[in-house]
Amino acid sequence: MIGVDWGTTQLRAYRIDSSGGVLASRSAPKGIMAVEGGAFAHTLEAVIADWLDQEPAPILMSGMIGSRQGWVEAPYVPCPARADQVAQALVEVAWGNGRRGFICPGLACRDRDGVPDVMRGEEVQMFGALDALAEAAGSAICHPGTHSKHVTVEDGTVAGFRTYMTGEVFAVLRDHSILGRTMAAGPADWQAFDRGVERASNSGGLLHHLFGARTRVLMDEIAPAAEADYLSGMLIGHEIHAAGGSGAVLVVGAQALAERYARAFRLCGREARVLDDETATVKGLRLIHDLAQKAAS
Amino acid sequence: MIGVDWGTTQLRAYRIDSSGGVLASRSAPKGIMAVEGGAFAHTLEAVIADWLDQEPAPILMSGMIGSRQGWVEAPYVPCPARADQVAQALVEVAWGNGRRGFICPGLACRDRDGVPDVMRGEEVQMFGALDALAEAAGSAICHPGTHSKHVTVEDGTVAGFRTYMTGEVFAVLRDHSILGRTMAAGPADWQAFDRGVERASNSGGLLHHLFGARTRVLMDEIAPAAEADYLSGMLIGHEIHAAGGSGAVLVVGAQALAERYARAFRLCGREARVLDDETATVKGLRLIHDLAQKAAS
Repeated sequence: MIGVDWGTTQLRAYRIDSSGGVLASRSAPKGIMAVEGGAFAHTLEAVIADWLDQEPAPILMSGMIGSRQGWVEAPYVPCPARADQVAQALVEVAWGNGRRGFICPGLACRDRDGVPDVMRGEEVQMFGALDALAEAAGSAICHPGTHSKHVTVEDGTVAGFRTYMTGEVFAVLRDHSILGRTMAAGPADWQAFDRGVERASNSGGLLHHLFGARTRVLMDEIAPAAEADYLSGMLIGHEIHAAGGSGAVLVVGAQALAERYARAFRLCGREARVLDDETATVKGLRLIHDLAQKAAS
Repeated sequence: MIGVDWGTTQLRAYRIDSSGGVLASRSAPKGIMAVEGGAFAHTLEAVIADWLDQEPAPILMSGMIGSRQGWVEAPYVPCPARADQVAQALVEVAWGNGRRGFICPGLACRDRDGVPDVMRGEEVQMFGALDALAEAAGSAICHPGTHSKHVTVEDGTVAGFRTYMTGEVFAVLRDHSILGRTMAAGPADWQAFDRGVERASNSGGLLHHLFGARTRVLMDEIAPAAEADYLSGMLIGHEIHAAGGSGAVLVVGAQALAERYARAFRLCGREARVLDDETATVKGLRLIHDLAQKAAS
């Protein structure tokens, strides 16, 4: 089968064998924001024309391609949600040439105070990770990123999740606030990162801790080259404390970022394992594809 | 006397009578970042040459003019600190023509976890506010702004304070994050502001609440023209909860922002009064000036 992880900035396509192994992969900077005039079919054909000629099965896509700005909007599946429910809610795209393509819907939930939350793309990774690790019961999964997701899984069902704007807050503070002005480039400083994670457990709140990053640099308690990692640790620490929970957590993400989160979880007394997000995506696309085929037959 | 509130972007000068009333005032966009080559004396003379000809008393300055980037660095006075201790720590600037000028030092403290904190300029406003309102015992004072300060005063002594990066975080999120992209201009929406303040008392933490501002707009629960006020209320609410305390609070700041904070404090069950920051600055400069004269005589 062919699976496509199609996000805001990147398109990643995979040829996947029947056990969820990758036969071939391609990526292009053709995220949905780079596609003009709704030319999604044309864009995809330009990247994987040769695969399409060889592969008769429907293409399965996930990510922002199913948003209002994508090829076709795939309405969110409400939590609690299982993988087979997602597989039965695939939305077909209009494609010519007798080809068929489907988009995997995202998930929606409300937090305990009734505020809505959404994900698109991480749900495929999450079901893929659960399938790959054969873990369905009582798992906590974290998807770090621009908008980090913390997911609670009970018996293979996504009970709910919460999103944290951690990655984006880090980027805007580094690039546009007074904190960035004292930062200097340097190699990763894990000691500073750990101090940031520890700082997050202090009283005073995030808005106060942020200002402390500046004063600590001004008072020579933190080196300019260490400030970015101190800030990173502080923000990730606040996210982990706010997400709460106890016990082991599975971090699914790009390797460097996932390892950074796993380190922070361990500092907070949690067991943490890492699974590469590409592996999780491919396993998840295969699983959803197979469940959809089974339901259709 | 002549008092000067000299910040990063603005210079504000006052002629002040013996009871702390304003005889005349002038302002110019000549903050310390706009002064080239250390020409502070020249810059000030250009704004108030006629006053200087008439007024023999020393000039008292406060704010970032006393920072490392200012005219001369006035080392921080450590907390706990009283007004007379600040008055005895004035630093004289090198000025020609037989004129004399002094800079008021800022205050420094450490929070309960040992992280340093600093202020420059707000200390003059705070002592001025206490003097103007004849309140020296058990007061909580809030100076809202780019970097908000919450100050604890005991018997006329500044016991300590904490800074929150609230105003700057609001600005960078509005101008540079995904939250700003869905915002539309509109008149102040106090209902949305109040919902933001209330949201801050929910569980989940600031980083999660921020993402909820986006989803609530996408789900039509908050209008694009109301999103900025919702975000503002949320950040100010988080600041107030983190600052803690109970009982009445005095908000010293520019009127619109101070009234916004007072509204949030009241929503959080606190009594709140507002004092205009210009009044507080002038009263404070007069007080410090008089205390310095008294100590010198």
